This record gives sequence, C-alpha cells and structure tokens, in this order.
Amino acid sequence: MPQKKIARKSATVGAHRDAPQTPPEKKTVAKKNAPSKPAAKTRFPISAYPFAHALVENMKPLVEHGLYPAKSVLGETVTVTADIFRDGHEKCEADLLFRRRGEAAWYREPMRFVDNDAWTGAFTPDALGDWEFTIEARTAHREGYEPYAEFEEPYFHPHFGTLRVDPKLTEFSAWYEMFPRSQGTDPNKSATFRDMENRLDYIQDMGFDVLYLTPIHPVGETKRKGKNNSVTAKPGEPGSPYAIGNYRLAGQGGDGGHKAVHPEFGTLADCRRFFDKARSRGFSLVMDYALNCSPDHPYAQEHPDWFYREKDGTIRCAENPPKRYEDIYPLNFFCADRENLWRELKSIIDFWIDMGVTIFRVDNPHTKPFDFWEWMIAEVKADHPEVVFLAEAFTRPKIMKRLAKIGFDLSYTYFTWRVTARELREYCEELTQQEPALYMKPIFFATTPDILPWHLQNAPREMFKIRHALAATLVGAYGMYNGYEICEGEPYPGKEEFNNSEKYQYKVWDWDRPGHIRDFIRALNAIRREHPALQQLKNLRFHDTDNPQLLAYSKTDAESGDALLFIVNLDPANRQSGWITLDKTALGLEGEAIFGVHDLLSGQSYAWKDRNYVELNPFHEVLHVMKVEKF
Amino acid sequence: MPQKKIARKSATVGAHRDAPQTPPEKKTVAKKNAPSKPAAKTRFPISAYPFAHALVENMKPLVEHGLYPAKSVLGETVTVTADIFRDGHEKCEADLLFRRRGEAAWYREPMRFVDNDAWTGAFTPDALGDWEFTIEARTAHREGYEPYAEFEEPYFHPHFGTLRVDPKLTEFSAWYEMFPRSQGTDPNKSATFRDMENRLDYIQDMGFDVLYLTPIHPVGETKRKGKNNSVTAKPGEPGSPYAIGNYRLAGQGGDGGHKAVHPEFGTLADCRRFFDKARSRGFSLVMDYALNCSPDHPYAQEHPDWFYREKDGTIRCAENPPKRYEDIYPLNFFCADRENLWRELKSIIDFWIDMGVTIFRVDNPHTKPFDFWEWMIAEVKADHPEVVFLAEAFTRPKIMKRLAKIGFDLSYTYFTWRVTARELREYCEELTQQEPALYMKPIFFATTPDILPWHLQNAPREMFKIRHALAATLVGAYGMYNGYEICEGEPYPGKEEFNNSEKYQYKVWDWDRPGHIRDFIRALNAIRREHPALQQLKNLRFHDTDNPQLLAYSKTDAESGDALLFIVNLDPANRQSGWITLDKTALGLEGEAIFGVHDLLSGQSYAWKDRNYVELNPFHEVLHVMKVEKF
Repeated sequence: MPQKKIARKSATVGAHRDAPQTPPEKKTVAKKNAPSKPAAKTRFPISAYPFAHALVENMKPLVEHGLYPAKSVLGETVTVTADIFRDGHEKCEADLLFRRRGEAAWYREPMRFVDNDAWTGAFTPDALGDWEFTIEARTAHREGYEPYAEFEEPYFHPHFGTLRVDPKLTEFSAWYEMFPRSQGTDPNKSATFRDMENRLDYIQDMGFDVLYLTPIHPVGETKRKGKNNSVTAKPGEPGSPYAIGNYRLAGQGGDGGHKAVHPEFGTLADCRRFFDKARSRGFSLVMDYALNCSPDHPYAQEHPDWFYREKDGTIRCAENPPKRYEDIYPLNFFCADRENLWRELKSIIDFWIDMGVTIFRVDNPHTKPFDFWEWMIAEVKADHPEVVFLAEAFTRPKIMKRLAKIGFDLSYTYFTWRVTARELREYCEELTQQEPALYMKPIFFATTPDILPWHLQNAPREMFKIRHALAATLVGAYGMYNGYEICEGEPYPGKEEFNNSEKYQYKVWDWDRPGHIRDFIRALNAIRREHPALQQLKNLRFHDTDNPQLLAYSKTDAESGDALLFIVNLDPANRQSGWITLDKTALGLEGEAIFGVHDLLSGQSYAWKDRNYVELNPFHEVLHVMKVEKF
Repeated sequence: MPQKKIARKSATVGAHRDAPQTPPEKKTVAKKNAPSKPAAKTRFPISAYPFAHALVENMKPLVEHGLYPAKSVLGETVTVTADIFRDGHEKCEADLLFRRRGEAAWYREPMRFVDNDAWTGAFTPDALGDWEFTIEARTAHREGYEPYAEFEEPYFHPHFGTLRVDPKLTEFSAWYEMFPRSQGTDPNKSATFRDMENRLDYIQDMGFDVLYLTPIHPVGETKRKGKNNSVTAKPGEPGSPYAIGNYRLAGQGGDGGHKAVHPEFGTLADCRRFFDKARSRGFSLVMDYALNCSPDHPYAQEHPDWFYREKDGTIRCAENPPKRYEDIYPLNFFCADRENLWRELKSIIDFWIDMGVTIFRVDNPHTKPFDFWEWMIAEVKADHPEVVFLAEAFTRPKIMKRLAKIGFDLSYTYFTWRVTARELREYCEELTQQEPALYMKPIFFATTPDILPWHLQNAPREMFKIRHALAATLVGAYGMYNGYEICEGEPYPGKEEFNNSEKYQYKVWDWDRPGHIRDFIRALNAIRREHPALQQLKNLRFHDTDNPQLLAYSKTDAESGDALLFIVNLDPANRQSGWITLDKTALGLEGEAIFGVHDLLSGQSYAWKDRNYVELNPFHEVLHVMKVEKF
C-alpha cells in the first residue's frame, strides 16, 4: 500500500512540527583537511559503490513517482521506455522484467535501443490485476574483448513501475442507464423486476451490452423529497432513490438498507432472477453505490456512532454551508468504530458481487475520504480483479484525477459540457494523448438523470444524434440514459435538469414516441462492434477543418490496419461545408496520394486526397463515418 | 546518498535474477467471501488510515523523483508549487517547510492558493549547500464551526524536495582561459608563474573575474606528443599538458603528479604567490582536473594496480576501439584498492583548495564512473560548499544531464555549434526554460583549446564579435579562451581544431595584434556588471523577427525592473534589417503603447512600440544592447 510509505514519512516530519520558527544557529565551517593528507575515513562509504554499471533513468509509465499504477486493459500490449546509458565507451544492453504482483519470478524480454540513449520494450499481461515491472541494464559484452572483471552487476531502475490490468469493458462498452421505477406501463406505480426484464429485448436490439440501474434499495420516508425535488413529498410520492434505507421495510426484501431491494420492485429472489436473465444475454450489470443514508436507514438506528453528531447527540444532516440537506445523513468515515464501518461498507459490495453485479457506479466519491476508496478498491480487487468502479465525481479536475490514481477504473467526464469543436478537441486530446491517459479511463454520457445540459434542452432530434455520435465514437466507453433515444429534453425552468424527473415521481415512457433515434443508435453500436479501431481509447487523432462547425477525427487499429474517419456537423439546424486537411500519418497513409473512403452510414464511396471538400446537411445525416482504405 | 536506496532495491530484485524464464503457474482465483458476511480481517489494515486529511501532489521542483537536488544560487528566491486539496467541502491551508540538510528544525512559510487546486510558496536560503523542503497541508478551520475531531493530522508530501544552493558565480561569471606556457615572451620556452602574473592587468582590464588555467603539472615523456598532435615529439617539444605526471620531476615542484607544478613554471611557492596575487585582485581560480596519467606518472610507478592491466601484467593504455592512446593510462576506478585510489584522487582536490583554487574544470568526466563523481562531489562539498565543479563533457545530451544531476555545478554546452537563430533560440530555451534549467547550469564558450568550430575558422573579426556577444549575454556564465580577443582562427586543415595549437608547443602571442576586439569585450563585461538582468540564467526570453539573420532576446530582473533587449545580426558580412515583434509581457511592458530604448553601445535612443524596424551593419556594430525604459 503506497499509503504506508506516506505514513512513515509523515511521522519523521511530524516530530519536528513544533520546532522553533527562528532560523537555526549558524554552524562554523568545518576545518578543511590538511593538504595532501586525505582523511582516513570518508563520509560516504566507498564500499557502497563496488561496480561499474549501466544506468536506467526516466522509466515510463510511472504515475506519481510509481506510487500508483498505470492502467491498461487485458490483451493490450504495454510499452515501457527509459533512458539507458553508462560512462565511457562501452555499450549497454537491457531487459524489461515484469510479473504479476505477488509472484516471485520475473518474466524477461530484451529491450531495444531507439535513439539518443532511449530504449523501448513491451509486454502483454495475460491476467487481470496488478503487475509490476522494472528494467535491468547491463554493460554489453564487447566481441573479441575480455570483459572487465569489475563490470557486470546488473543495474535496476530505482523505482518499480506498477500497472493495473482491467477488463476490456473499461475501454469498450455501451451502457444503457435504466431508472428502474419507470420501466413499467402504469404511471401511478413503480415498475417491477419483471417489467425491467421485459425491456431487455429493446435494449439489446439497440446494441447495448452494459445495463446500469440507479438505486433499487428501500427509500427513506423522513424528510422525503417530492416531485421536482420539492422539500415535502405528497402522500404516495416515491421519493429520491438516493435517500437510501428504510428500516421499516426490513425483511420484505432484505435488511432495509444497502443490501435490500425496495419491495415494490419485488423480492431479492426476483432481483436475482432478473439479473440472471440479463447476464445470460451477455449484459454486464452496474449498480449504484451511493453512501448516503436516509434518516430511516437501519445504520442510523443501529449505529448512530457511524455518523456525525450534534452536541445534543442527534445525527448531523448533510450540509454544504449555508445549505443543509435534511433527508440525508453523511457517514463519518473516521469515527471511532471505523474498522467495523469500513468492513460493513465493503460487505455491501461483496453482497452485490454475489448477486451478479460486476460494475459499481460510485455516487459522489469526492465527498468521502480518498483513503477509504483506496482501501476499499484494493480490498475488493484483491479477490475480484474483474470488478470495475466508476467514479461519478463532477468536480475539479485534480480531484477527478486523484480518484483515478487511487483506484477508480472509470471516470465520468466534462464531455457533457464540451460543445464547440475546439473544446471537444482540446478535452479529448487531454484524455487520450496526455498525462491522464496513463491512469484515467473516461466514459462519455450526453445526459444523466441529474444533468440536462443547455444545448439539449428542447433541442431538435438532430442535436440528440450529434451528441450521441460524439459520445459513441470519440472514446470507446459511453453511456446513454433512458429517454435519450426518444429525445427527451424538457428542462426544469432555469436549471440544467429535467422537468418532472423520474428521480422524484412515478413515470412511464412511450418508447416508440415519434422522432426517436433508435435506428441511428443501433447503426452506430453495430459499427462499434465491427471495428477494432473503435474499441480503444488512446488512438484518437483530430484533423484540421476550415469550418469550426465541422469536427474531424479518426481512430485506427495498429494491428489490423482498421481505420475510421469521422466528420461531424456540430450545427443541428444548418447545412455546413468546408475543407478537411487530413493528417495522413495518423491514418497510416503516408505514402498514398489517393485513397478510398466509404461512408458506413450512407453507403457512398469517394476517392480522397490530403484535402477534401465535405458538406453535411443535418436533416439528411449529422456525420460521415468513413472507412478508410488504401487503393 | 540516493545511491543507497538504489542498492537496496537492486538487492531485492537481484534475488530473482536467475528465476526461471517460464511464466509462473496460474493461481486459482481466491474464493469470494460469502455474501453479507465480511471477512473478519481485511488485507490492508484500516488502522493505517486514522484521519481525514488534505493531500499534496505534484510538488515542484523535484529532480528524478527527488533523488537529486534542484539547483539555485545564493540569494535566489526558490518557488515551490504543488496541488493541494481534500475530499468534501472543507478548505485547505498549507505551509512550505524548509531547512538546511542536517538541521533538526524546519523553517515554515505559509503557502498561497493560486487556482485550480494549485498552491505556491517561496523561500530564500541563507547559506550555501544542501537544503530540503516539504509541504504540510491541513484542513482549514472553518469560522464559526467546531472542527471535526477526526481532522487535523497534518499531511506531508510523500517525497522530500532537495535543493542545492551554489555560489552566485555559477550563474554569473566571466572566465578567461589561460594556457600557462604561452603567457610569456620567448617562443622557445615556457612562460613562468611570474609571466602569468604580468598578464593580470590585461585580463582584469577587459573585465574578467575568473581565471582558468589548463594543467600546470609535470608532463610525461614516454610517448610524448609533438607539434599538432604528431605521434612523436621532437627533442625540446613540451608535450600535451593533459598527459599528466612525470616522476623524474618529483621534488622539483611537488610529487611529480597531480599535486605538483611543472618546474618550468616555477616552484609550488611561486605558484601560491601567483594564485594569491590573482585572488587579491578578486579573481576566482579554476584548475583543470584531468584524471589521466602519463606512463611516467608516479601512480603508474607506485600503484600499477590502480590501472587496467594486460594479461602480461603491463598497464593497458587508453583506447576507443579501434584507436589506442599510448601516451595515457586510464585509471581503473573499480580496482580492488579503490578505497585508497578514490581517497587519493580526492586529496588532489583538497590540495588545490588549500592553494586557493575554488573551481575545478573536470576533463571528460563522462569517461569515468558517474558513481565516482557523485561520491567525490558530495565529499568535497560537505566541507566546501563554495567549491564548484565544471563538467567538460562534450557528449550525448542525457549523459551531460546526468552529470549535472549527480553533482556537477556547471556544464559546457553545445553553444559552440549552435549558429542559426533557430538553433540558438531552441537550445537556449531548453537550457533556460525547460527541464534542464532545474538542475543544469550552462557556461558558454565560443572556442576552447580543443575546438575551433567551422564558423570561426579564418573568420572576420565581426564573427568573433558576434559569437562573443552571444556567449556573454544569452546566459550569465561565459568563458573566453586566450587568443580569441585577437581573433585567432587559423584551423588545422580539415578539423575543428587550431593549427599549431599551444597544447603541443611553446608559443607567444601578440596581444596587441591589429583587429583585436578588446574594447568590445570590455564594453560588454561592463554592461554585464551594471545590469542585474544579465546576472541570472532563467530570465532569457526570445522575440520574433522576420529576418532569420536577426536574433532578438531580452533579459529582465524582476526585483529591480532592469530590462535589456538584444538584437544581434548573425551575418558578419552583410547589413541585415527587419521587423522585430516584441513580447511586451516578457519585457514588463503590458500596459505601455510606447516606451524608450537606449542603445548602451551606440548611445542612441528611440521611442519603440510593439513592432519596430531594425537595421544592423556589422562593420559598424554587430548588435544593439537596448536598455528598455517606460516613458
């Protein structure tokens, strides 16, 4: 655990915490040695330097000096680079050493000299979980010469690199986010697990492979929120499913808390049957992991010491001064009984893993201690490296990055608010090419139950298509919140939120509502499945256009040569045209004067060169998806 | 010593060195916990996380993860930055902690929030030598609220930053490199220390403050090199002073080796008197530290085991296959008796420190082990933080950087071969703005005894002025090799070397040779002394020009507001003109539409704005040195 190193260092420094604030006394300069009479002993023992050796510097990838792992997906070949050299005229040689954490033996692959003392090596981990690597460099044997006896202790990089290998779905998956209570047909009551099961055909037909449920636990009654987040609920209103826990429902579908299901959905057995049906069709299951408790949560009854307390002993509600949230109690992760609290919170994960869930979407992790997540994720992944945690932290960039470093596999992003070509290009280049790409895997959502961004409010279906196409093709992992496919965009006045949100009321949807974009979604999901270039993160490259309403980018798969080029009209209301200047190197077309592009949506083909004219009428289609082929 | 950490890590890895090359056996996946029954014990002890806390990430400066110190000069204010944040809604506060290495108490300065979770702090070390710093971050007390009891263990950055404070002359000094044997008036014999003393007026008049002597030790006779580096010397030829050591001269001026002076210069007492004279005028003294031994060096007689040996027991000469250098024996730094060898080599430094030398120009350090230098420099600086080591390593970039990281204060550079405006700008931006600026201090030489670059071969005096002006103003530390001031540029045919080099023969110079540029050198050195903007490294900024023969750059001193702008005509043979587009922010002139520039060489003044026309006739003057002033 990296944290242990930190703790040690803190202890050392802490000892001086109360040291005087005045400068230390000046020491007199130590008297120098008499000339030509060297000191009998030296300060730094010469015996610590017994051999001439090669050096390894600047090893990559290293996240936070090696404290945290770089991330990859199973099947991905990981490249390790370093500067390797030694003094004098001798040449070096080097091996990349790698192993699963916990194994004693190292695998070994020779590294290759590139240029300017830079070397490269690669390995392909064959299992999920934590791996470590280092570099061994040596003085090369010079043919025809006897080696100097003093050479040849191999030298290792002073830091271990660490790598976490995650499931492929962290780079390639299509999520359908389902609000469980709204999957039925009666607007006056909740849907059931059976209703949810009835929707699997529809969801699978569109091409989604991950099914994400917002919380399905009992909902608190005390201070329950009403329609449109009003502070008091009317009788019969269901409340927000994020106000979790109702001890009065214990026994009807579990314990009344995070290990229970709301009885209106059915029993735990019904839940398991629904989950099994979904899994048997190939869906991975996502559960919300929201560590809020309603005042009616069994924890509040049985463990009031796990919460913050007012002076009078009552439990303190959530607050972000000057606001107070009286329907939610935040947990005190550093209470005296934290060991039982943390174990109990982990047991929630274990419970749902046993039910078949492999992905946990964590609600607002940044309002809970980083240390807790680091501990939790390490504990869970030690037994279940296949389990994936998604951080729902719409907060400041460095906090989002920190959550990724300490273990979250996937991160929500600012994509939801990146609208112009320049914003999209800058942000996506940061996510796919720059430092965060080492350890943070993004998932793109155009909307969420909490967020209806301005540009989708009462927007035409062309805008829904544009934002969907961007989400589904810029990166490999994306999600869609139910209702998007029927272009639901009615805002709560003045807020980036939905009107009459299903978060606070029973609701049914007309999935065949005129103007839906199911066919478009299905077509893009099919293209994603057929093209390995769309199943990875770091291969995104942008191309210049002379019209800021046109965004051009490509994705290529080095192994198969698969290359797709996208040109998106960002304007939902007008035909836009312009010239695209292609980065032929990014497309693997350095040597080609002319090449073929075949639009997978329209079926049309063209002969293209470096610069090409493009015209997109959004009412016909909002983008080109060009399969690029050499003649 | 950083090396100790490395050695520990190597030992761990080394234990597995001979591990089998086959993949380890697959482990069966550990059985998961039963649902809702958490394991009684967790793998990672929860007790290791006792407190909520703030975090510190991305602390700068850190060289090689903190293994090596960043460098500064005495009097410089050092800025430390980091990202500081915590979970939840609480605010943070932070202090920068710093101390001299070895002191128990920390000084403490509050840090300031900048933006986007970035914080900054600063301190000004008051003594030479090694310092360390870290950052303490805390949860800020929220006014009107009781602090949560669980908060408030301060958090420290997991790495110490280290900083070495060096003498100001590492950023600001003007060196005159003197070839001792050529400072006299008789072309058939060596100059003496008295002759050298006679030249101090001349050197000081030009404005130099550092006096650098190539080796003054006895020269070997065996395999001595003759005129122009011919393989055999004629009788009476003096040989290269880099073939050090002649035991037959022991007693006449020392021990015959590195602690001796060549008797033809005088005695050790004469040497000390000359050094004292130079120091009393304010010169700092530089000695060559060339760890080569001629076959006649006393070490070769008394310690043949300190050298590499052939199978027949004879000492192996230097080689860079297929070449062999029979006049020089390289030392074997990892011989069995290395402890005595290393101490003896350090005693040479101690000897000359006692004689008054404070700067050692190390000859070809990259052909000796990095570990030796790391040990040597740490040992010397522990007693003498005022002593400075200059690495003469004209080699690959990463090796030059490594030497700087492990302790060398100053580095020769590629300036000698950077000729075009683009080359100069790119290279100087790397040295002053990019990563090497953290730990590498450059010194610029236009020529050295070994190097007469093509562009100065038989070049006009205007070219000598151009290269001198660049060396003296782009960075603060520069040197000039004697003969440059009289525009000596006769090449050995086909090589970047001088013809009839004084390295291999007795020689005298006519210091008043027509066409000399002493007045120009004196003027620039005077401007350097008067302007704090020219006495630092990292304040160099370039400005755009529309003529590639014109190079424009400025240096400003933040404290005094002193700002100088240079425009150099790089073409020695033609008048060049063009438009200069000024970076007004770099000049501290954001708000000024018009401002004054006063040419310190011509005495002329102008009113300038963003873009200005410039014309330079090299036969009149090769550059403008503009003092910039607000109206």
